[in-house]
Amino acid sequence: MKYKEKLRKTVKENGSNVIVGLDPQKEKIPGIFRKSGNPILAFNKAIIEATKGICAGYKLNTAFFEAEGLEGWRAIEGTLEAIPGNMIRICDSKRGDIGNSSEAYARAYFDRMGFDAITISPYMGKDSVEPFLERKDKLTYILGNTSNPGAEDFQKLRIGKKYLFEIVVERFLEMDRYDNIGFVFGAERTDYIEKYTQENRKLPLLIPGIGAQGGDAKKLVERIHNKLFLVNSSRGIIYSAPKECTRKEFYNIVKTRTKDLSDEVNKKII
Amino acid sequence: MKYKEKLRKTVKENGSNVIVGLDPQKEKIPGIFRKSGNPILAFNKAIIEATKGICAGYKLNTAFFEAEGLEGWRAIEGTLEAIPGNMIRICDSKRGDIGNSSEAYARAYFDRMGFDAITISPYMGKDSVEPFLERKDKLTYILGNTSNPGAEDFQKLRIGKKYLFEIVVERFLEMDRYDNIGFVFGAERTDYIEKYTQENRKLPLLIPGIGAQGGDAKKLVERIHNKLFLVNSSRGIIYSAPKECTRKEFYNIVKTRTKDLSDEVNKKII
Repeated sequence: MKYKEKLRKTVKENGSNVIVGLDPQKEKIPGIFRKSGNPILAFNKAIIEATKGICAGYKLNTAFFEAEGLEGWRAIEGTLEAIPGNMIRICDSKRGDIGNSSEAYARAYFDRMGFDAITISPYMGKDSVEPFLERKDKLTYILGNTSNPGAEDFQKLRIGKKYLFEIVVERFLEMDRYDNIGFVFGAERTDYIEKYTQENRKLPLLIPGIGAQGGDAKKLVERIHNKLFLVNSSRGIIYSAPKECTRKEFYNIVKTRTKDLSDEVNKKII
Repeated sequence: MKYKEKLRKTVKENGSNVIVGLDPQKEKIPGIFRKSGNPILAFNKAIIEATKGICAGYKLNTAFFEAEGLEGWRAIEGTLEAIPGNMIRICDSKRGDIGNSSEAYARAYFDRMGFDAITISPYMGKDSVEPFLERKDKLTYILGNTSNPGAEDFQKLRIGKKYLFEIVVERFLEMDRYDNIGFVFGAERTDYIEKYTQENRKLPLLIPGIGAQGGDAKKLVERIHNKLFLVNSSRGIIYSAPKECTRKEFYNIVKTRTKDLSDEVNKKII
């Protein structure tokens, strides 16, 4: 099944365009998971248990897994197994390298691990993205205008009358022959989110920056004009329970927080 | 010890500005390593055995390790252990993410694994590089103008009278308060390699694109005006022996190839 079809189906079935960001940091996770042989895996599994069926899927930020070495690598594999097959699994790794290296990354994350989509940095140009696009059922989210302060430094340089990130979007859309390219736009970039979703009703956007990064879900959603978007919340959901809590409390708090965000995001749409 | 000091020392001791790129692909490695429990680790160890003391160090391209899952992750750790402590260990991962994610990557590759340097993609801006720079003894090589065809797509867009990659270099040099930033320039970018090494005698460049990627070592070295550069060769060295060979043949061929490249690169300099 092509990614966009899977996304459409999952959003409909689960009534949610929210994707939960799994950024597990050992020092931040509640005590109840710390005695496990693989605390970050136990933490992720509990989040999935609490939120499956009420969000569209999960985004794993590889940084936090790699920081734990082999244990982190095992946690990626275990986390993927715990995610129901009809939900979306995004590898947030911001990779991008010359052809044969990008081919190796595509093999790692798409062929071996079975992620549905990946985030890619565009700096090295079109050929660095090609191997990911060759996996026609998968989706590649290219960084557009991100949500961090440094997004001003290069992404917003002026090339003639346009910003660099606008050129990035244009050039990649020109090469989107398998209809499997999307973009990452920070939640506060509402002008451009509006523009691109109005111009292109089938363009999938991945939108971080809600919650801990400060975006406002309601304002954002009013500006989105297609249904293929995903609003990501990481810290705002996964660290919503206090560090000292029972499993049941954790489950309820994380579930409620996800449900609330889904309601806010999907009120208008579904 | 600061990275630049370590680099200067190693180059002098080993008489070489060559860094060997470890891009291990299981299907390409000689039969003698395939029966090992971890073939890519066995392959890397044999390369290190053959080339230590005659090159400046090793660059591990994470793509090829990640493609092998847990086994690949173990191979990174084992490879690092096999590299003599006085040699340079570069993590070629082209990461770059928002602050807390980059902090996790810095923890993974610098604090946990002990790499001396890392390659970073600049697209997300200054704050995405900051956590790496905070490790003051380590070096961060930021992508400048790379060696692949796609390097034309965005890196060479004109911002006023300059290319995007020139702006990237300028902006990062402005924030180089710990003297621990370098850049990646493809071997064919000789005009800019000349310019930057003339202007800045202490700027470390990492230069891939020699060998399989087609650069010419002699022409390149004539244009370099400081001693803190590293010329990388990956496929041209590590796959120089035939797939069917003895350990001794492998050792001799890989050693000779590395020595020849070092001689060519260092003839003028040392």
